[in-house]
Amino acid sequence: MEVNHHTSPTNQSLRITATGLVVEDHTPLHSLVSFIDTILRGVAQVMLQNNSYAGLIFLIGIFYNSALFGLAVLIGTAASTSTAILLAVDRTQIRQGLFGFNGALVAIALLYFLEPNLLTLGYVVIACSFSTIFMAALLTLFNIWKLPTLTAPFILTSLCFVLACARFGRLHSTNQLPTAGLPQSATVEGIVTASTVIEGLFNGIAQVFFQGNVITGAIFAIGLLVSSRLAFVTSLVGSLTGVLVAWGMGAAEPAIRSGAFGFNCVLTAIAIGSVFFILDIALAIYGLLAVITTAVVFAAISAALQPIGMPAMTAPFVIVVWLFLLASPIFPRLHRV
Amino acid sequence: MEVNHHTSPTNQSLRITATGLVVEDHTPLHSLVSFIDTILRGVAQVMLQNNSYAGLIFLIGIFYNSALFGLAVLIGTAASTSTAILLAVDRTQIRQGLFGFNGALVAIALLYFLEPNLLTLGYVVIACSFSTIFMAALLTLFNIWKLPTLTAPFILTSLCFVLACARFGRLHSTNQLPTAGLPQSATVEGIVTASTVIEGLFNGIAQVFFQGNVITGAIFAIGLLVSSRLAFVTSLVGSLTGVLVAWGMGAAEPAIRSGAFGFNCVLTAIAIGSVFFILDIALAIYGLLAVITTAVVFAAISAALQPIGMPAMTAPFVIVVWLFLLASPIFPRLHRV
Amino acid sequence: MEVNHHTSPTNQSLRITATGLVVEDHTPLHSLVSFIDTILRGVAQVMLQNNSYAGLIFLIGIFYNSALFGLAVLIGTAASTSTAILLAVDRTQIRQGLFGFNGALVAIALLYFLEPNLLTLGYVVIACSFSTIFMAALLTLFNIWKLPTLTAPFILTSLCFVLACARFGRLHSTNQLPTAGLPQSATVEGIVTASTVIEGLFNGIAQVFFQGNVITGAIFAIGLLVSSRLAFVTSLVGSLTGVLVAWGMGAAEPAIRSGAFGFNCVLTAIAIGSVFFILDIALAIYGLLAVITTAVVFAAISAALQPIGMPAMTAPFVIVVWLFLLASPIFPRLHRV
Repeated sequence: MEVNHHTSPTNQSLRITATGLVVEDHTPLHSLVSFIDTILRGVAQVMLQNNSYAGLIFLIGIFYNSALFGLAVLIGTAASTSTAILLAVDRTQIRQGLFGFNGALVAIALLYFLEPNLLTLGYVVIACSFSTIFMAALLTLFNIWKLPTLTAPFILTSLCFVLACARFGRLHSTNQLPTAGLPQSATVEGIVTASTVIEGLFNGIAQVFFQGNVITGAIFAIGLLVSSRLAFVTSLVGSLTGVLVAWGMGAAEPAIRSGAFGFNCVLTAIAIGSVFFILDIALAIYGLLAVITTAVVFAAISAALQPIGMPAMTAPFVIVVWLFLLASPIFPRLHRV
Repeated sequence: MEVNHHTSPTNQSLRITATGLVVEDHTPLHSLVSFIDTILRGVAQVMLQNNSYAGLIFLIGIFYNSALFGLAVLIGTAASTSTAILLAVDRTQIRQGLFGFNGALVAIALLYFLEPNLLTLGYVVIACSFSTIFMAALLTLFNIWKLPTLTAPFILTSLCFVLACARFGRLHSTNQLPTAGLPQSATVEGIVTASTVIEGLFNGIAQVFFQGNVITGAIFAIGLLVSSRLAFVTSLVGSLTGVLVAWGMGAAEPAIRSGAFGFNCVLTAIAIGSVFFILDIALAIYGLLAVITTAVVFAAISAALQPIGMPAMTAPFVIVVWLFLLASPIFPRLHRV
Repeated sequence: MEVNHHTSPTNQSLRITATGLVVEDHTPLHSLVSFIDTILRGVAQVMLQNNSYAGLIFLIGIFYNSALFGLAVLIGTAASTSTAILLAVDRTQIRQGLFGFNGALVAIALLYFLEPNLLTLGYVVIACSFSTIFMAALLTLFNIWKLPTLTAPFILTSLCFVLACARFGRLHSTNQLPTAGLPQSATVEGIVTASTVIEGLFNGIAQVFFQGNVITGAIFAIGLLVSSRLAFVTSLVGSLTGVLVAWGMGAAEPAIRSGAFGFNCVLTAIAIGSVFFILDIALAIYGLLAVITTAVVFAAISAALQPIGMPAMTAPFVIVVWLFLLASPIFPRLHRV
């Protein structure tokens, strides 16, 4: 159901489609409307959606929780996308938001972990530009296996730029960074109730963008629903699985409630369940194993990074989905999209 | 020297050969005899042998030391092999035990480092299933270089599932895990005697399966002899080299005696000396450098993992053999099998 | 401007060219003159120069600061090159010094971080031989992407062989190793003056070979000038950028003065600015981003390695240049040499 919105005399045409604004290749990318649509798709791609309406709703969810992070997302997506435009990247990839989502997350992560000031702002812009180089490098590296980069450029860029503040006296970390220490064995902490599960469920979706807010999580879920019913369902199933695995294994109640065990599972569930494979019984079991493993890998990476005081971010999702994608050609029961 | 053991009316045939039972492709894999043969080959593949008699002898050696670890090997090999069967992996690879050996080691490792109970058992089964996905992923990833996965799926799966217990209050580690701490410079500790060398020699072979038992090591050596005289000789040379390098560099006597410096050298020696290359003078020197380096890399990785309190497992073997395999096309003096 | 220096009756010919001695393929590589030329090129390749005069001047710079390190470079380059010759590597690659530079750096690093004695000397020779295997392995691994190994074999070999001394009681580390500890947030330390900047500028070049000496840095710069005016200019710009980024971000003054933030930037600047790309405006901006990022990545890796008490060495240069090389095909604005 596409509507012809505008046809310019120079053969440019903008059309409103089910996934947002579609612009013909001849249109200058820097035309404001087209650029905004690209930014929104960049935001949506954080949850693997190529849909500018979803991006807009995600942005509303973030602004609902924090204007600072809302602005961070806009600046980060714009900075990384602009770097790609300046270096003349193939327009189709830019227009799908593929050079925006890492920048969006880098900017939020840096402003989540570092105190905001003018120096930090410049630092964020450089980090977001670098995330575009990183994205391009991984595109070349992974082309052989047709493997998606997922959010790897974001994770590694953020890790570097946050870790560096241990040497840079003019950058100050917020109290959101884990304290550096040696990992110790855990004990069961707190009692899991219905409210833990429900808050954990929505916080898990919200934490994909570093937001600890149940309403924001619900808004994100609506954004997913607008883009894809399957993405909506798998995200909820993923978040719930993360909560249940963590509960079953005796993770700390506050961590379960905060969504810490959920956000990687949300992304794994969306990716395996609704993006890269055709859903059938075999895939459902495969996806469930992937999501359960994601919760374990989250616990492991979070412990492994404790001596350097760094968070796991979305590394568990990236590693598990890479493995389950790479493995799939060996398993004839599974069918790739 | 093959004996026709049985020919069924449906064209199935089982034959006893020098390396165990050989079943024609048409035979249902889940037929019990065939499945047991596959499990035994999976156990044998831990030492790079495709020979079900060797697997049986290794199993006897493990049961001699500990019924728990014997059962663990059976459960682990069965769980990972079954996952491969369910996902319809190519039957030839399954029948060689290639989807069994990582599961065997994952199960032993988890029961070595985690207290056994019903939750741990479920955890082990999931970890073994995951090791099959990991194996398949590395098969795809390494296909470009025709590089074998070796025990990498085991190492990384075990590392994740053991590390995760720092976040999971219902899993408890045994006192076998290294204490997390900062690496410090070593001093020469204890005096190496003939008994250190002899115990270290056989413990080095036993430790491939996490067994600290001289008799078990000797039984393993017999298993290797049944499968390949060259594997038998190289395993002893490898273990001895590990002991001598550690002694010469001033490693702690108890560590040398326990076989800690030997088991990676055993595997490197078998792999380079008897599996992947044709043995000649050039290869002997190449292999010796590989084995010596393996002892050094073991010391390094063991120190590097100290802050997260994790053991090196067979990572030194895997890394060194990958490097020496990848390097070999550049060196015309060497000849691959 | 080539001079025919010598023509032997067996069709061998040595010619003195702008980059050193050129020997025809028929010449036995072990002829002393040819071997020395190869060693000097190996030393020069540390700064990515295939020029034996540059190698000679670098060597003079090192001997000016320390006879021990001068000898280390000679032994290391000879050991790794000899290993390549023994294993019959393609002569052209050997003659360009490509199997020498990693050995040169491994030997300096081990003698910088470990107390020199006879055991250490044997250890150094084994490490240098291993660096040749590592180099060959990476050549095969990276062939798919036509990616250069840079100094990765040196970094990983040195890391292993130095880390191992935490388990080897007869190896003793010098006080040059960072103390193992948990990374903490930095504060601005000391006041940066003109002398900090000038010393940092030349120390940055000197530190490529682990030399903390301004005159040595100046001699290295002359060596670069002899080989390539562009390499000379980019090395100075790189070192200065490292100093300025570190200063701007509030790094400790003694670290800035010592060249710690500069040596990786020097190498990144030479690689991106004068070796792998054609210099134009787009490349200048691309290279500047690469050099700035190198300083950040240095801070990050140096913090990440603190729990195991290891230095970053040239890992930031290697990682950043790999990324910027891999990314470049996606950016049509850039032109590879």
